[in-house]
Amino acid sequence: MSPLLKSLSGDPEIEALMSDEATIAHMIRFERALAMAEGELSMIPEDHARRIHLELKDFVPDMAQLAAGMERDGVVVPELVRQMRAVLGEAGASLHRGTTSQDVIDSAMAMQIVSVMPVFASRIDRLLTGFDALAARHHGQELQAHTRMQKALPISVAVKVKSWRAPLRRAGAVLAEAGRELTVVQLGGPVGDGASFKGNDRLLAEQLGPRLGLGVAPPWHSERDRIAGFAAELAKVSGVLGKFGTDISLMAQGDRGEVRVEEAGISSAIADKANPVAAEVLVALARFNAGSLGTLHQALVHENESSGAAWTLEWLVLPQMILTTGASLRLAQRLLDRISF
Amino acid sequence: MSPLLKSLSGDPEIEALMSDEATIAHMIRFERALAMAEGELSMIPEDHARRIHLELKDFVPDMAQLAAGMERDGVVVPELVRQMRAVLGEAGASLHRGTTSQDVIDSAMAMQIVSVMPVFASRIDRLLTGFDALAARHHGQELQAHTRMQKALPISVAVKVKSWRAPLRRAGAVLAEAGRELTVVQLGGPVGDGASFKGNDRLLAEQLGPRLGLGVAPPWHSERDRIAGFAAELAKVSGVLGKFGTDISLMAQGDRGEVRVEEAGISSAIADKANPVAAEVLVALARFNAGSLGTLHQALVHENESSGAAWTLEWLVLPQMILTTGASLRLAQRLLDRISF
Amino acid sequence: MSPLLKSLSGDPEIEALMSDEATIAHMIRFERALAMAEGELSMIPEDHARRIHLELKDFVPDMAQLAAGMERDGVVVPELVRQMRAVLGEAGASLHRGTTSQDVIDSAMAMQIVSVMPVFASRIDRLLTGFDALAARHHGQELQAHTRMQKALPISVAVKVKSWRAPLRRAGAVLAEAGRELTVVQLGGPVGDGASFKGNDRLLAEQLGPRLGLGVAPPWHSERDRIAGFAAELAKVSGVLGKFGTDISLMAQGDRGEVRVEEAGISSAIADKANPVAAEVLVALARFNAGSLGTLHQALVHENESSGAAWTLEWLVLPQMILTTGASLRLAQRLLDRISF
Amino acid sequence: MSPLLKSLSGDPEIEALMSDEATIAHMIRFERALAMAEGELSMIPEDHARRIHLELKDFVPDMAQLAAGMERDGVVVPELVRQMRAVLGEAGASLHRGTTSQDVIDSAMAMQIVSVMPVFASRIDRLLTGFDALAARHHGQELQAHTRMQKALPISVAVKVKSWRAPLRRAGAVLAEAGRELTVVQLGGPVGDGASFKGNDRLLAEQLGPRLGLGVAPPWHSERDRIAGFAAELAKVSGVLGKFGTDISLMAQGDRGEVRVEEAGISSAIADKANPVAAEVLVALARFNAGSLGTLHQALVHENESSGAAWTLEWLVLPQMILTTGASLRLAQRLLDRISF
Repeated sequence: MSPLLKSLSGDPEIEALMSDEATIAHMIRFERALAMAEGELSMIPEDHARRIHLELKDFVPDMAQLAAGMERDGVVVPELVRQMRAVLGEAGASLHRGTTSQDVIDSAMAMQIVSVMPVFASRIDRLLTGFDALAARHHGQELQAHTRMQKALPISVAVKVKSWRAPLRRAGAVLAEAGRELTVVQLGGPVGDGASFKGNDRLLAEQLGPRLGLGVAPPWHSERDRIAGFAAELAKVSGVLGKFGTDISLMAQGDRGEVRVEEAGISSAIADKANPVAAEVLVALARFNAGSLGTLHQALVHENESSGAAWTLEWLVLPQMILTTGASLRLAQRLLDRISF
Repeated sequence: MSPLLKSLSGDPEIEALMSDEATIAHMIRFERALAMAEGELSMIPEDHARRIHLELKDFVPDMAQLAAGMERDGVVVPELVRQMRAVLGEAGASLHRGTTSQDVIDSAMAMQIVSVMPVFASRIDRLLTGFDALAARHHGQELQAHTRMQKALPISVAVKVKSWRAPLRRAGAVLAEAGRELTVVQLGGPVGDGASFKGNDRLLAEQLGPRLGLGVAPPWHSERDRIAGFAAELAKVSGVLGKFGTDISLMAQGDRGEVRVEEAGISSAIADKANPVAAEVLVALARFNAGSLGTLHQALVHENESSGAAWTLEWLVLPQMILTTGASLRLAQRLLDRISF
Repeated sequence: MSPLLKSLSGDPEIEALMSDEATIAHMIRFERALAMAEGELSMIPEDHARRIHLELKDFVPDMAQLAAGMERDGVVVPELVRQMRAVLGEAGASLHRGTTSQDVIDSAMAMQIVSVMPVFASRIDRLLTGFDALAARHHGQELQAHTRMQKALPISVAVKVKSWRAPLRRAGAVLAEAGRELTVVQLGGPVGDGASFKGNDRLLAEQLGPRLGLGVAPPWHSERDRIAGFAAELAKVSGVLGKFGTDISLMAQGDRGEVRVEEAGISSAIADKANPVAAEVLVALARFNAGSLGTLHQALVHENESSGAAWTLEWLVLPQMILTTGASLRLAQRLLDRISF
Repeated sequence: MSPLLKSLSGDPEIEALMSDEATIAHMIRFERALAMAEGELSMIPEDHARRIHLELKDFVPDMAQLAAGMERDGVVVPELVRQMRAVLGEAGASLHRGTTSQDVIDSAMAMQIVSVMPVFASRIDRLLTGFDALAARHHGQELQAHTRMQKALPISVAVKVKSWRAPLRRAGAVLAEAGRELTVVQLGGPVGDGASFKGNDRLLAEQLGPRLGLGVAPPWHSERDRIAGFAAELAKVSGVLGKFGTDISLMAQGDRGEVRVEEAGISSAIADKANPVAAEVLVALARFNAGSLGTLHQALVHENESSGAAWTLEWLVLPQMILTTGASLRLAQRLLDRISF
């Protein structure tokens, strides 16, 4: 998405949390925590562990070299490990012990989602409160219901608002649950069986999880159901907000005029026209996320112990679904703040 | 899907539960239960209620006329109600009191899913048991792990089997939950606010739910998140079975030969070739359901109080997702019964 | 799709052309024509060729056994060949010489599309004529234009109708072209290189093509671009008709009332409500086909010389896209016949 | 897509052509050319036309303000016009005469695609030549064919290479045609009927087209079939390259070892493992573009004379499909340069 388009349908707050810099910081945090845990279990020399933990605290990688590594290796981790080792001297040999790219990448992804979830939760809460306030402000007022695009009977504003609020509340609750399900540590080693950790894999996962703000689970390298499940809840959130958007678009039709949208977009051609921009973009984002969900689910067909093809497909789709969901919540709030009946 | 294709990728047991005859039977059951409940609340004359309940017990609709009604009205209910009234005499005036097509259709759909869920559950259970048995049979055996399509290290059969079993177990559990969430009574009347039931809407829903084997919930006419959520879990089940299928396909490659698949399909051209048919179809079904999920989520953008466009899209997609998931479970069992390492 | 749903969104005429019976008849025709051509080239005994050609003219396969074969082998051809051989005596050994399931299936599919194309073409022509007549009937009349869901300036009926007609005309032309591109003979033998035809593969294809009503092309077993391209044009046709549907739905809103739709569907709950059923179903079909297109394009990633997974995915999606497109054309005509401004 | 991910699956050359700066430059070029043409037809004062043409030649907009306008208005054009008018004095009143945002945006999009097409064409040509060279280098060599994931018979390298080359050649040819079809001037004014140009709309379009490197066509505001058609060809190109990628991935399996891929990606965990990175990413990009196509086709259901929802959906999807196609071509070349049998 280009910067201009982002100003319409992006989300700066979420984007910062999903940035490469944030990703790499999570990866470094993973390696530091792993070294500490391995040091405590005497899997690596204790001084190596301490050195890794301290030395990498403020480590700033060479992003251009990381990009070159990403292009060459298909993952950023080998080059990141190389850069970290370059500053660690002897202790470098103990870095990344027993682990593999996928452990680092999936755990960092999970940490990223941990950082995003409270933003989603508080936005959803604010929307739910806002819907309540909207219903309260228009208590006793009626709107025209339409079924199959035809005028039906009148309904109360409360009933209309409930049709936006109730699915969002439910979607928010399940999203939170899917988020918890997904934000578990990944620690499986080269082939995902934990064998490279010499019998300490469970212990290490139990130590790593809490340190990284993640839940504990057995390795899930090629088990991508958590990602598919989380993505489905993202699409559900933007989908129910798309219903809000389409309803406002329809109600705001000059012919119906059932809703006033303040500060709507101006037209370059017709002077006094007020376009319900946020409402329309909510529809577009809902459709975009819906389609993206269908694409992401293709990645469930994950070949063997680790599939570069399925992995890359997840990276192409999941972050933009998270951003799109964020943007939907942002625009829904903007719209909600500006409507009255 | 043509009958021939169904023999490959269909599911006769699920298809029977999803048939028009089953659908219409659920609709009649809905109308009978509603009449009884309305009779008890004196919303309609008690003898009308009894007559409706009794007379429609063995009511057999004229399917050709129903089809004509469906074509004309976009829904089957108006014609079904007309046919039922034709046999009810005076009591016919009390039939369908306060309710609307969407109540009948959504409740019947929920009842249908209630009928399907135990089949899914028992198939998943059987698969989980079968995976355990497979791992037990090959205890101590090793397989070659492959990451990014390259030979990596050996792993135990148990680890491989776990990568198929664990996501299925999780997906099964969430599917059951999404099923419970979706299988709630729909009772909102013409514009979904329950007003046509004269203050008895909640009471009626509480009575109807248990009688129809459904949970109780406020009307959810234009709140389609439950459907989207259920569909996502269907796609997840077929998706994780697609991973099983692709792994077996890859392992069964003549070059790798890590798995034996008994009774595989024969070729019309090469005599001694054994094709891992079920494994390949599992991949196709996973991709089909994944794409279908993206399409179904488009229906979350449900216009106004009831959208014929969004509704029809659900009908086009959801039943075939249910069938596809059933077929995936069926074929996964067939495959599991025939593999050994 | 269930029979009831078919009465709304199906297409009996297209369905007949796409039936299993039609498919199998095309396959038998393929085998007969191949035998004749191979006889003329002395690849099989001439009397075998004649016997195959004559004996199979009225051959009626055992459909139940075909279904069993389909389930077992993943394709219907091995069992079909077995049944045909059973009636051919010695000549059976010459049947299916050098060819393979994929040749038969793809060629039969192409023949099926040949049979469908004139129906599509004549429906599109009729719609184009109908749009012209609609514009002529309302010559000089104006409608309210809406941009971004807001009243803009008035436009002539001619301009409105052109926005439906022009894309359909273009889509129809490209569909015809994509149809020609796809309807070419498939003749590659077991691995798609034609080698099994002992140097006669080109000659055979040149003979087969015209006999089967197909164009001539080199084998294209794993080259599925023609199918993807054809599907895209199907989705484009239903997509532009979806725009027609959504416009009529919006214009028919009670609040706008810019269009009259005669004989609209009745509601089971509100007496005098007229629902623009066909218009809404056009939108649903457009969205369904759009999503299906995204799914079918997944099958372009066709593994090796022939992929059972990609093949099956095509079979699951392409026929229903053809049916959906047919239904869109049918419903667009129904709608067009009933609207006036 | 984050910068790191872009280094793997992006395309710097195409990205530059698709940048906001390039977009805005095309928009300014459109306004300048329109003013000149309107001046020549005396629709605006000739000195205004000259002033607009000259003054805006090196006009550099305030991008931050454009972003703010985009957010507010849903389109960038009103703010861009405001900025341009601010430097034009009296002549500003003649800027953007008769036209509207959609004219500017669609024409600029078309100009952008004009700039991208030669890059695609030359990359496809280079790949076609490269495939020929690959086949020539391995003349007389054989490979193992696999059907349904099972060893079949041997085929020549030429036959294998043809299965990658032929669909790319066809896809390239149709892409070029779809590009020509799409790259036509958009000039319809506020409601797309050209009426705001006072009878000069055709003349203006005929003048504007050649000046902007575009074809001439009647206004196509709400006729989005050209975009859908172009997108389908993009997905076809990346799809057929996905087949190339999956074949190489499968052939490069350690167990099969039928292809050598030089300079493959290194693993962070297993020392001597060489991952076929580009091959895997080609598969991911094919699946991503396939899904995106399904999403974009949803935008064919374009409401009324101009739909902000459908528009925004196009902007979200089309540019990234163009980038993905570019990246597929880039990576296919990288892969082709590094393989030998």
